[in-house]
Amino acid sequence: MTKARTSLALFGGEPTLGPGHDLKSSWSERGLEQALCEYTGARYAKCVSSGTAALISGLFAAGCGPGDEVITVAFTWTATVGAILRVNAVPIFADIDPRTFTMDVKDCRRKITPQTKAILPVDFYGHPAPIPELMALAEEHDLLVIEDACQASAAEIDGVKVGNIAHFTAFSWSGKPIYSASGGGAYLTNDRRLYERALLAGQHPTVIQGLATDPEVLKYASMGGTGDNMRAVGLDALQQLLDADVRTEARIRNCEYLTERLAEHPYLTPPYVRPGYKHVYHYYTCLWDAEAAGVSRDRFLRALNAEGVYAVAYVTDANYRFAPESNPIQAGGPIHLRTVFQERNLYGKGCPFLCPHVKNPPVYRQGDLPVSERIAEQEFSLAQWHLSPPCDEQDMQLILDAIHKVCDNLGALR
Amino acid sequence: MTKARTSLALFGGEPTLGPGHDLKSSWSERGLEQALCEYTGARYAKCVSSGTAALISGLFAAGCGPGDEVITVAFTWTATVGAILRVNAVPIFADIDPRTFTMDVKDCRRKITPQTKAILPVDFYGHPAPIPELMALAEEHDLLVIEDACQASAAEIDGVKVGNIAHFTAFSWSGKPIYSASGGGAYLTNDRRLYERALLAGQHPTVIQGLATDPEVLKYASMGGTGDNMRAVGLDALQQLLDADVRTEARIRNCEYLTERLAEHPYLTPPYVRPGYKHVYHYYTCLWDAEAAGVSRDRFLRALNAEGVYAVAYVTDANYRFAPESNPIQAGGPIHLRTVFQERNLYGKGCPFLCPHVKNPPVYRQGDLPVSERIAEQEFSLAQWHLSPPCDEQDMQLILDAIHKVCDNLGALR
Repeated sequence: MTKARTSLALFGGEPTLGPGHDLKSSWSERGLEQALCEYTGARYAKCVSSGTAALISGLFAAGCGPGDEVITVAFTWTATVGAILRVNAVPIFADIDPRTFTMDVKDCRRKITPQTKAILPVDFYGHPAPIPELMALAEEHDLLVIEDACQASAAEIDGVKVGNIAHFTAFSWSGKPIYSASGGGAYLTNDRRLYERALLAGQHPTVIQGLATDPEVLKYASMGGTGDNMRAVGLDALQQLLDADVRTEARIRNCEYLTERLAEHPYLTPPYVRPGYKHVYHYYTCLWDAEAAGVSRDRFLRALNAEGVYAVAYVTDANYRFAPESNPIQAGGPIHLRTVFQERNLYGKGCPFLCPHVKNPPVYRQGDLPVSERIAEQEFSLAQWHLSPPCDEQDMQLILDAIHKVCDNLGALR
Repeated sequence: MTKARTSLALFGGEPTLGPGHDLKSSWSERGLEQALCEYTGARYAKCVSSGTAALISGLFAAGCGPGDEVITVAFTWTATVGAILRVNAVPIFADIDPRTFTMDVKDCRRKITPQTKAILPVDFYGHPAPIPELMALAEEHDLLVIEDACQASAAEIDGVKVGNIAHFTAFSWSGKPIYSASGGGAYLTNDRRLYERALLAGQHPTVIQGLATDPEVLKYASMGGTGDNMRAVGLDALQQLLDADVRTEARIRNCEYLTERLAEHPYLTPPYVRPGYKHVYHYYTCLWDAEAAGVSRDRFLRALNAEGVYAVAYVTDANYRFAPESNPIQAGGPIHLRTVFQERNLYGKGCPFLCPHVKNPPVYRQGDLPVSERIAEQEFSLAQWHLSPPCDEQDMQLILDAIHKVCDNLGALR
């Protein structure tokens, strides 16, 4: 009888843990959320299932929907743009700055229309986008800036951490500077209204109810928002926050060691870092001058890989290297050239591109984004695992040795 | 130098683990997927981030999109219906059978229109929906049956495990009969085409590319589908598969012990189990006859909770019990009565309910689903943790004692 009585006493009456939602998980979430606020200085943080989920949450909170345009970049990972399609809005692509590989503010300005609702710049490869200029532009036009900082957690602009600069910022833990093997991510904002509305994108009713105070948000809590389940995972990312800056500084030192020694290279342009910007080097991305070298980028990369240095053409074929050459999948490249954008049909009936609410249906053409398209053909990246501690100057020297060895023998590759 | 050389030798050339996607996770996924196929007999299984993600994957695979109708039930958890909205299709509600609380086949037949694309029944509380009849109906009308078995992993119909009966089946691990504290879920199907197309709903490009063979699927791999990240979590659910049937049988014995002793109760109707159907009792759900008892269900439940038996009115207010009474959030109840359905506007501009592609915009009214609405006022459920091992007959007797004590003292509650 003791066991039996215990089981009722333990779980009966007012249970600590309930069905449907696991409150234990919420306690961990709150720990990481509080740490993220302290680390970045942002007022609000919410853990979610991925960086993609964080972006979707921000776009939903900003009220982006059918017929609305969101200006972003095509020189990015798919999730940036997928999040816009996910809320049925239309991605409009601005070109990139050829040195930082992030959004070109002037081109963004040109792309603003009365249908524009938000700007979604990407801190690509770990270099922050020009968020202060974009915030000024957004203020001028009454827009919101949702920053995709998935590759740039730990980055800074003028001494301020990303997460505390844009209206809304998305972080990711999957393979990123602040890491969890389980994936996961978070959104950060200083805007209470965005914080609460973003809960509706995919949080459990109990989470919305526990965190929101606005009756206009709470009245939707019983539906749990847009039907997604963005339950937080990867809460062990908290461990990495404890020494995020130490590991980041070590990686930056390694990358600067490479850059100093590649500055005068005849075929290879090392990464540029804009003054005042802290580049956290999720990747170390160079440009390859195939014409000057007389050897294609792909041939150069294969030779570099053979020397034990792992490098990829991220936008073109990263994550595709396992494809057998006989498998005719569509190549990558800037997002506007991929199948979904050429066909303009994701959910059927042209949705969301050709939705009747879209005033000017977008057309995505080769040549639209000359810088993005050119850089996609020249860029290659060293993987983060070559760059982060325990790798040090000796490892960097081995990478340089491999690059020099390949470049000294280009004749054999021609 | 040794460390440095090791780091290049370890990661250089052809790496085992790549950036962006964690292949280690894929190995675990494949283990659970193979176990799910062996356990259910289904040909294909894919682990995803949640049961919701599995449902969305199935609806996307079935081609459900703007203007399409999906027939489901309103007597369910929000995720069932949220998944339909998520692909921009329109939920059409069929009423439920008053004994099994699952889809009424006759009412489903009445709701079929030329716009119907799929039927989404729910194995609610752990009792399988009438899938064989729905499959026959679907065949008649060239529809697909996507089964929400999130509360019924381990259930069976005529000796066949769910997951191996409908065209496509969604499982969930979050608090469910097969459990992981991290959440997660899976989809199962015998249809190779559905299996492959479902990958496009939210899998990483490398996953799509590694698993799909259809060029019509592969050509979208570079975009990673609809922009969601449905990366699998909760892979420790595999541990529970090893003894899923043993634990399920123990829970069934406990529930049958209760049912035998509640069969003649004057105010309370214990769960019904349809012959040939294995009810796995995610909840043990009874009906309360408030009129005969002269005491409202809510008052009865509060008294039962005070006796240490945790019971909730799941559809009406499960997951809302933490709400202070002063917090005026919208009550639950059958899904068609909740705010999103009354306002018919989720993504803005009436999407997806009033989308110009919708032929007959749905209207959701009180009274539309008399059985669902009536049962929602009568039902209450004992939580799974009272029912599963290590709880045994002694615990069941304590629950019965508590019920009898409350019922013997109803006068004090009137």
